[in-house]
Amino acid sequence: MSRLEQQISFILEIDKLKTVLRQTLLCDRSRRENSAEHSWHLAVMAVLMAEYAPGPVDVARVVKMVLVHDVVEVDAGDTFAYDAPGNIGKEDRERKAAKRIFGLLPAEQGKELKALWEEFEARETTEAKFANALDRLQPLLHNSRTEGGTWKIHNVNRKQVMWRMDPVREGMPEVWPLVLKIVDDACGCGWIAVARE
Amino acid sequence: MSRLEQQISFILEIDKLKTVLRQTLLCDRSRRENSAEHSWHLAVMAVLMAEYAPGPVDVARVVKMVLVHDVVEVDAGDTFAYDAPGNIGKEDRERKAAKRIFGLLPAEQGKELKALWEEFEARETTEAKFANALDRLQPLLHNSRTEGGTWKIHNVNRKQVMWRMDPVREGMPEVWPLVLKIVDDACGCGWIAVARE
Repeated sequence: MSRLEQQISFILEIDKLKTVLRQTLLCDRSRRENSAEHSWHLAVMAVLMAEYAPGPVDVARVVKMVLVHDVVEVDAGDTFAYDAPGNIGKEDRERKAAKRIFGLLPAEQGKELKALWEEFEARETTEAKFANALDRLQPLLHNSRTEGGTWKIHNVNRKQVMWRMDPVREGMPEVWPLVLKIVDDACGCGWIAVARE
Repeated sequence: MSRLEQQISFILEIDKLKTVLRQTLLCDRSRRENSAEHSWHLAVMAVLMAEYAPGPVDVARVVKMVLVHDVVEVDAGDTFAYDAPGNIGKEDRERKAAKRIFGLLPAEQGKELKALWEEFEARETTEAKFANALDRLQPLLHNSRTEGGTWKIHNVNRKQVMWRMDPVREGMPEVWPLVLKIVDDACGCGWIAVARE
Protein backbone atom coordinates (compact mmCIF):
# COMPACT_ATOMS: atom_id res chain seq x y z
CA MET A 1 0.00 0.00 0.00
CA SER A 2 1.38 3.43 -0.90
CA ARG A 3 1.92 6.10 1.74
CA LEU A 4 -1.05 8.09 0.39
CA GLU A 5 -3.26 4.99 0.46
CA GLN A 6 -2.30 4.35 4.08
CA GLN A 7 -3.21 7.91 5.00
CA ILE A 8 -6.53 7.67 3.22
CA SER A 9 -7.36 4.35 4.83
CA PHE A 10 -6.89 6.00 8.25
CA ILE A 11 -8.93 9.03 7.20
CA LEU A 12 -11.82 6.84 6.07
CA GLU A 13 -11.56 4.59 9.12
CA ILE A 14 -11.93 7.45 11.61
CA ASP A 15 -15.13 8.53 9.87
CA LYS A 16 -16.71 5.96 12.20
CA LEU A 17 -16.10 8.33 15.13
CA LYS A 18 -19.06 10.34 13.82
CA THR A 19 -21.32 7.46 14.82
CA VAL A 20 -19.95 7.00 18.35
CA LEU A 21 -22.42 8.68 20.67
CA ARG A 22 -21.46 10.30 23.95
CA GLN A 23 -23.92 10.89 26.79
CA THR A 24 -23.71 14.69 26.43
CA LEU A 25 -26.63 16.40 24.72
CA LEU A 26 -26.25 19.13 22.11
CA CYS A 27 -27.12 22.57 23.48
CA ASP A 28 -30.47 22.48 21.66
CA ARG A 29 -31.15 19.06 23.26
CA SER A 30 -32.08 17.61 19.86
CA ARG A 31 -29.81 14.59 20.28
CA ARG A 32 -26.68 13.18 21.91
CA GLU A 33 -23.31 14.46 20.79
CA ASN A 34 -20.93 12.26 18.83
CA SER A 35 -17.21 11.98 19.51
CA ALA A 36 -16.10 13.53 16.21
CA GLU A 37 -18.00 16.79 16.64
CA HIS A 38 -17.00 16.81 20.33
CA SER A 39 -13.34 16.64 19.23
CA TRP A 40 -13.91 19.55 16.86
CA HIS A 41 -15.43 21.58 19.67
CA LEU A 42 -12.44 20.90 21.94
CA ALA A 43 -10.02 21.88 19.17
CA VAL A 44 -11.71 25.26 18.76
CA MET A 45 -11.69 25.70 22.53
CA ALA A 46 -7.97 24.88 22.64
CA VAL A 47 -7.30 27.65 20.13
CA LEU A 48 -9.35 30.17 22.12
CA MET A 49 -8.51 29.24 25.70
CA ALA A 50 -4.75 28.64 25.64
CA GLU A 51 -4.31 31.70 27.85
CA TYR A 52 -5.87 29.72 30.73
CA ALA A 53 -3.45 26.79 30.49
CA PRO A 54 -1.40 26.32 33.66
CA GLY A 55 1.82 27.24 31.85
CA PRO A 56 3.12 27.95 28.36
CA VAL A 57 1.66 25.45 25.91
CA ASP A 58 2.27 24.60 22.27
CA VAL A 59 -1.30 25.22 21.09
CA ALA A 60 -0.77 23.29 17.87
CA ARG A 61 0.20 20.19 19.86
CA VAL A 62 -2.85 20.57 22.10
CA VAL A 63 -5.10 20.90 19.05
CA LYS A 64 -3.63 17.75 17.50
CA MET A 65 -4.00 15.97 20.83
CA VAL A 66 -7.69 16.77 21.21
CA LEU A 67 -8.36 16.02 17.52
CA VAL A 68 -7.25 12.40 18.06
CA HIS A 69 -7.96 11.94 21.78
CA ASP A 70 -11.13 9.91 21.14
CA VAL A 71 -10.13 8.06 17.96
CA VAL A 72 -9.75 4.81 19.92
CA GLU A 73 -13.53 4.86 20.46
CA VAL A 74 -13.94 3.69 16.87
CA ASP A 75 -13.17 0.24 18.31
CA ALA A 76 -13.62 0.70 22.05
CA GLY A 77 -16.78 2.84 22.11
CA ASP A 78 -17.46 5.74 24.44
CA THR A 79 -17.62 4.86 28.12
CA PHE A 80 -19.80 7.12 30.23
CA ALA A 81 -17.63 8.83 32.83
CA TYR A 82 -20.02 8.06 35.68
CA ASP A 83 -20.44 4.39 34.77
CA ALA A 84 -17.97 2.65 37.09
CA PRO A 85 -18.58 -0.95 35.93
CA GLY A 86 -18.48 0.16 32.29
CA ASN A 87 -15.02 1.57 32.89
CA ILE A 88 -13.57 -1.83 33.84
CA GLY A 89 -11.25 -3.03 31.09
CA LYS A 90 -11.48 0.34 29.31
CA GLU A 91 -7.72 0.90 29.34
CA ASP A 92 -6.99 -2.43 27.76
CA ARG A 93 -9.71 -2.05 25.10
CA GLU A 94 -8.42 1.39 24.20
CA ARG A 95 -4.81 0.33 24.03
CA LYS A 96 -5.67 -2.39 21.55
CA ALA A 97 -7.74 0.07 19.54
CA ALA A 98 -4.89 2.60 19.44
CA LYS A 99 -2.53 -0.05 18.14
CA ARG A 100 -4.86 -1.05 15.33
CA ILE A 101 -6.14 2.37 14.28
CA PHE A 102 -2.95 4.41 14.45
CA GLY A 103 -1.28 1.38 12.88
CA LEU A 104 -3.12 2.13 9.64
CA LEU A 105 -0.94 5.21 9.11
CA PRO A 106 2.60 5.41 7.73
CA ALA A 107 4.79 4.39 10.67
CA GLU A 108 6.12 7.78 11.75
CA GLN A 109 2.70 9.46 11.56
CA GLY A 110 1.02 6.65 13.46
CA LYS A 111 3.72 6.80 16.10
CA GLU A 112 3.34 10.55 16.55
CA LEU A 113 -0.45 10.47 16.93
CA LYS A 114 -0.39 7.42 19.19
CA ALA A 115 2.15 9.17 21.41
CA LEU A 116 -0.12 12.22 21.60
CA TRP A 117 -3.03 10.00 22.62
CA GLU A 118 -0.88 8.35 25.31
CA GLU A 119 0.23 11.78 26.50
CA PHE A 120 -3.40 12.88 26.77
CA GLU A 121 -4.27 9.78 28.76
CA ALA A 122 -1.29 10.14 31.13
CA ARG A 123 -2.23 13.75 32.02
CA GLU A 124 1.30 14.60 33.05
CA THR A 125 2.52 17.29 30.64
CA THR A 126 1.16 20.84 30.72
CA GLU A 127 -0.39 20.28 27.29
CA ALA A 128 -2.14 17.11 28.44
CA LYS A 129 -3.41 18.75 31.62
CA PHE A 130 -4.85 21.61 29.62
CA ALA A 131 -6.37 19.25 27.02
CA ASN A 132 -7.99 17.14 29.74
CA ALA A 133 -9.39 20.27 31.38
CA LEU A 134 -11.03 21.22 28.06
CA ASP A 135 -12.46 17.71 27.79
CA ARG A 136 -14.11 18.14 31.21
CA LEU A 137 -15.19 21.76 30.80
CA GLN A 138 -17.05 21.24 27.52
CA PRO A 139 -19.70 18.77 28.82
CA LEU A 140 -20.09 20.93 31.94
CA LEU A 141 -21.02 23.87 29.71
CA HIS A 142 -23.45 21.65 27.80
CA ASN A 143 -25.06 20.27 30.96
CA SER A 144 -25.43 23.75 32.35
CA ARG A 145 -26.94 25.02 29.09
CA THR A 146 -29.41 22.09 28.90
CA GLU A 147 -30.86 22.49 32.40
CA GLY A 148 -28.82 19.67 33.87
CA GLY A 149 -28.46 17.48 30.78
CA THR A 150 -26.78 14.19 31.63
CA TRP A 151 -26.41 15.11 35.32
CA LYS A 152 -30.18 15.06 35.66
CA ILE A 153 -30.81 12.13 33.31
CA HIS A 154 -28.39 9.94 35.25
CA ASN A 155 -29.08 11.42 38.69
CA VAL A 156 -25.43 12.36 39.19
CA ASN A 157 -24.54 13.94 42.53
CA ARG A 158 -22.31 16.84 43.48
CA LYS A 159 -19.52 14.66 44.77
CA GLN A 160 -19.35 12.80 41.46
CA VAL A 161 -19.36 16.02 39.44
CA MET A 162 -16.61 17.53 41.58
CA TRP A 163 -14.49 14.42 41.11
CA ARG A 164 -15.10 14.54 37.38
CA MET A 165 -14.29 18.25 37.09
CA ASP A 166 -11.14 18.08 39.20
CA PRO A 167 -8.73 18.15 36.20
CA VAL A 168 -9.97 21.69 35.43
CA ARG A 169 -8.61 22.89 38.79
CA GLU A 170 -5.09 22.02 37.71
CA GLY A 171 -5.45 22.29 33.93
CA MET A 172 -7.19 25.69 33.77
CA PRO A 173 -6.81 27.20 37.26
CA GLU A 174 -8.27 30.57 36.28
CA VAL A 175 -11.43 28.90 34.99
CA TRP A 176 -11.92 26.86 38.16
CA PRO A 177 -14.00 29.53 39.97
CA LEU A 178 -16.43 29.49 37.03
CA VAL A 179 -16.72 25.71 37.29
CA LEU A 180 -17.55 26.01 40.99
CA LYS A 181 -20.16 28.65 40.25
CA ILE A 182 -21.79 26.54 37.51
CA VAL A 183 -21.86 23.49 39.80
CA ASP A 184 -23.31 25.50 42.70
CA ASP A 185 -25.96 27.03 40.47
CA ALA A 186 -26.83 23.58 39.09
CA CYS A 187 -27.16 22.23 42.63
CA GLY A 188 -29.39 25.18 43.49
CA CYS A 189 -31.60 24.39 40.49
CA GLY A 190 -31.83 20.73 41.48
CA TRP A 191 -29.97 19.64 38.31
CA ILE A 192 -27.23 18.01 40.38
CA ALA A 193 -28.27 15.86 43.34
CA VAL A 194 -26.83 17.10 46.61
CA ALA A 195 -26.21 13.82 48.44
CA ARG A 196 -25.49 13.71 52.12
CA GLU A 197 -21.74 13.53 51.96
CA MET B 1 -19.23 40.76 29.76
CA SER B 2 -15.85 39.42 30.87
CA ARG B 3 -13.33 38.08 28.39
CA LEU B 4 -13.98 34.51 29.55
CA GLU B 5 -17.75 35.00 29.20
CA GLN B 6 -17.27 36.26 25.63
CA GLN B 7 -15.20 33.21 24.78
CA ILE B 8 -17.78 30.87 26.28
CA SER B 9 -20.64 32.58 24.50
CA PHE B 10 -18.85 31.92 21.18
CA ILE B 11 -18.09 28.33 22.18
CA LEU B 12 -21.74 27.67 23.00
CA GLU B 13 -22.96 29.49 19.89
CA ILE B 14 -20.91 27.37 17.49
CA ASP B 15 -22.43 24.22 19.01
CA LYS B 16 -25.18 24.89 16.46
CA LEU B 17 -22.80 23.83 13.69
CA LYS B 18 -23.44 20.25 14.83
CA THR B 19 -27.00 20.60 13.55
CA VAL B 20 -26.12 22.04 10.12
CA LEU B 21 -26.38 19.17 7.67
CA ARG B 22 -24.30 18.89 4.53
CA GLN B 23 -25.28 16.77 1.54
CA THR B 24 -22.39 14.34 2.04
CA LEU B 25 -23.25 10.97 3.58
CA LEU B 26 -21.21 9.31 6.30
CA CYS B 27 -19.17 6.40 4.98
CA ASP B 28 -21.64 3.92 6.54
CA ARG B 29 -24.48 5.79 4.76
CA SER B 30 -26.46 6.00 8.02
CA ARG B 31 -27.09 9.73 7.70
CA ARG B 32 -25.86 13.03 6.25
CA GLU B 33 -22.74 14.59 7.68
CA ASN B 34 -22.89 17.76 9.75
CA SER B 35 -20.53 20.68 9.37
CA ALA B 36 -18.92 20.34 12.80
CA GLU B 37 -17.77 16.75 12.32
CA HIS B 38 -16.79 17.60 8.73
CA SER B 39 -14.52 20.35 10.11
CA TRP B 40 -12.97 17.87 12.53
CA HIS B 41 -12.30 15.48 9.67
CA LEU B 42 -10.58 18.21 7.64
CA ALA B 43 -8.45 19.23 10.63
CA VAL B 44 -7.15 15.67 11.02
CA MET B 45 -6.52 15.53 7.27
CA ALA B 46 -4.59 18.81 7.43
CA VAL B 47 -2.30 17.32 10.08
CA LEU B 48 -1.69 14.17 8.03
CA MET B 49 -1.51 15.54 4.50
CA ALA B 50 0.58 18.70 4.83
CA GLU B 51 3.29 17.02 2.77
CA TYR B 52 1.02 17.33 -0.29
CA ALA B 53 0.50 21.09 0.06
CA PRO B 54 1.79 23.02 -2.96
CA GLY B 55 4.51 24.67 -0.88
CA PRO B 56 5.64 25.04 2.74
CA VAL B 57 2.60 25.58 4.98
CA ASP B 58 2.11 26.48 8.62
CA VAL B 59 0.07 23.40 9.52
CA ALA B 60 -1.25 24.98 12.72
CA ARG B 61 -2.71 27.87 10.70
CA VAL B 62 -4.32 25.46 8.23
CA VAL B 63 -5.84 23.48 11.10
CA LYS B 64 -7.28 26.65 12.66
CA MET B 65 -8.57 27.70 9.24
CA VAL B 66 -10.45 24.46 8.61
CA LEU B 67 -11.74 24.36 12.19
CA VAL B 68 -13.59 27.64 11.63
CA HIS B 69 -14.12 27.57 7.85
CA ASP B 70 -17.80 26.61 8.16
CA VAL B 71 -18.74 28.49 11.33
CA VAL B 72 -20.70 31.05 9.29
CA GLU B 73 -23.16 28.26 8.46
CA VAL B 74 -24.60 28.63 11.96
CA ASP B 75 -26.49 31.59 10.47
CA ALA B 76 -26.16 31.07 6.73
CA GLY B 77 -26.73 27.30 6.49
CA ASP B 78 -24.88 24.92 4.23
CA THR B 79 -25.31 25.54 0.52
CA PHE B 80 -24.96 22.47 -1.68
CA ALA B 81 -22.05 22.98 -4.03
CA TYR B 82 -23.99 21.84 -7.09
CA ASP B 83 -27.04 24.02 -6.35
CA ALA B 84 -26.45 27.09 -8.52
CA PRO B 85 -29.59 29.05 -7.54
CA GLY B 86 -28.99 28.25 -3.86
CA ASN B 87 -25.58 29.84 -4.14
CA ILE B 88 -27.00 33.23 -5.10
CA GLY B 89 -26.55 35.65 -2.22
CA LYS B 90 -24.40 33.14 -0.37
CA GLU B 91 -21.44 35.50 -0.06
CA ASP B 92 -23.51 38.26 1.45
CA ARG B 93 -25.28 35.92 3.90
CA GLU B 94 -21.97 34.49 5.02
CA ARG B 95 -20.30 37.87 5.44
CA LYS B 96 -23.07 38.99 7.76
CA ALA B 97 -22.85 35.73 9.68
CA ALA B 98 -19.09 36.09 10.10
CA LYS B 99 -19.51 39.58 11.48
CA ARG B 100 -22.04 38.46 14.06
CA ILE B 101 -20.50 35.15 15.12
CA PHE B 102 -16.82 36.10 15.27
CA GLY B 103 -18.04 39.34 16.87
CA LEU B 104 -19.01 37.36 19.97
CA LEU B 105 -15.33 36.85 20.78
CA PRO B 106 -12.88 39.25 22.44
CA ALA B 107 -11.92 41.65 19.65
CA GLU B 108 -8.45 40.35 18.80
CA GLN B 109 -9.54 36.70 18.78
CA GLY B 110 -12.58 37.45 16.65
CA LYS B 111 -10.44 39.42 14.25
CA GLU B 112 -7.92 36.60 13.91
CA LEU B 113 -10.50 33.90 13.22
CA LYS B 114 -12.52 36.09 10.88
CA ALA B 115 -9.35 36.84 8.92
CA LEU B 116 -8.63 33.11 8.66
CA TRP B 117 -12.14 32.52 7.33
CA GLU B 118 -11.67 35.32 4.77
CA GLU B 119 -8.32 33.86 3.78
CA PHE B 120 -9.94 30.45 3.27
CA GLU B 121 -12.65 31.99 1.10
CA ALA B 122 -10.18 34.01 -0.99
CA ARG B 123 -8.09 30.89 -1.83
CA GLU B 124 -4.99 32.94 -2.54
CA THR B 125 -2.40 31.91 0.06
CA THR B 126 -0.71 28.51 -0.02
CA GLU B 127 -2.45 27.62 3.26
CA ALA B 128 -5.87 28.54 1.86
CA LYS B 129 -5.27 26.62 -1.36
CA PHE B 130 -4.30 23.54 0.63
CA ALA B 131 -7.28 23.96 3.01
CA ASN B 132 -9.69 24.29 0.09
CA ALA B 133 -8.22 21.21 -1.54
CA LEU B 134 -8.90 19.24 1.65
CA ASP B 135 -12.45 20.57 1.70
CA ARG B 136 -12.98 19.18 -1.82
CA LEU B 137 -11.10 15.92 -1.38
CA GLN B 138 -13.01 14.79 1.73
CA PRO B 139 -16.50 14.59 0.14
CA LEU B 140 -14.94 12.94 -2.93
CA LEU B 141 -13.59 10.19 -0.68
CA HIS B 142 -17.01 9.85 0.95
CA ASN B 143 -18.85 9.72 -2.37
CA SER B 144 -16.44 7.13 -3.67
CA ARG B 145 -16.81 5.05 -0.50
CA THR B 146 -20.63 5.23 -0.59
CA GLU B 147 -21.05 4.02 -4.18
CA GLY B 148 -21.59 7.47 -5.57
CA GLY B 149 -23.23 9.12 -2.55
CA THR B 150 -24.42 12.62 -3.37
CA TRP B 151 -23.20 12.40 -6.99
CA LYS B 152 -25.74 9.68 -7.61
CA ILE B 153 -28.51 11.13 -5.44
CA HIS B 154 -28.32 14.47 -7.26
CA ASN B 155 -27.43 13.08 -10.67
CA VAL B 156 -24.23 15.13 -10.86
CA ASN B 157 -22.23 14.82 -14.06
CA ARG B 158 -18.52 14.51 -14.73
CA LYS B 159 -18.12 18.09 -15.84
CA GLN B 160 -19.63 19.37 -12.60
CA VAL B 161 -17.43 17.09 -10.50
CA MET B 162 -14.30 18.15 -12.37
CA TRP B 163 -15.18 21.81 -11.83
CA ARG B 164 -15.81 21.15 -8.15
CA MET B 165 -12.55 19.20 -7.69
CA ASP B 166 -10.39 21.68 -9.56
CA PRO B 167 -8.93 23.29 -6.38
CA VAL B 168 -7.25 19.96 -5.58
CA ARG B 169 -5.18 20.27 -8.75
CA GLU B 170 -3.51 23.38 -7.42
CA GLY B 171 -3.88 22.81 -3.67
CA MET B 172 -2.57 19.21 -3.56
CA PRO B 173 -0.95 18.58 -6.94
CA GLU B 174 0.46 15.18 -5.96
CA VAL B 175 -3.00 13.97 -5.01
CA TRP B 176 -4.56 15.10 -8.28
CA PRO B 177 -3.89 11.82 -10.15
CA LEU B 178 -5.79 9.97 -7.41
CA VAL B 179 -8.74 12.35 -7.84
CA LEU B 180 -8.77 11.66 -11.58
CA LYS B 181 -8.67 7.93 -10.94
CA ILE B 182 -11.53 8.08 -8.44
CA VAL B 183 -13.63 10.18 -10.82
CA ASP B 184 -12.91 7.86 -13.74
CA ASP B 185 -13.76 4.80 -11.69
CA ALA B 186 -16.99 6.47 -10.49
CA CYS B 187 -17.92 7.27 -14.09
CA GLY B 188 -17.19 3.65 -15.01
CA CYS B 189 -19.51 2.46 -12.26
CA GLY B 190 -22.25 4.85 -13.37
CA TRP B 191 -22.06 6.82 -10.10
CA ILE B 192 -21.23 10.00 -11.99
CA ALA B 193 -23.27 10.81 -15.09
CA VAL B 194 -21.14 11.14 -18.21
CA ALA B 195 -22.97 13.89 -20.09
CA ARG B 196 -22.34 14.59 -23.76
CA GLU B 197 -19.96 17.48 -23.31
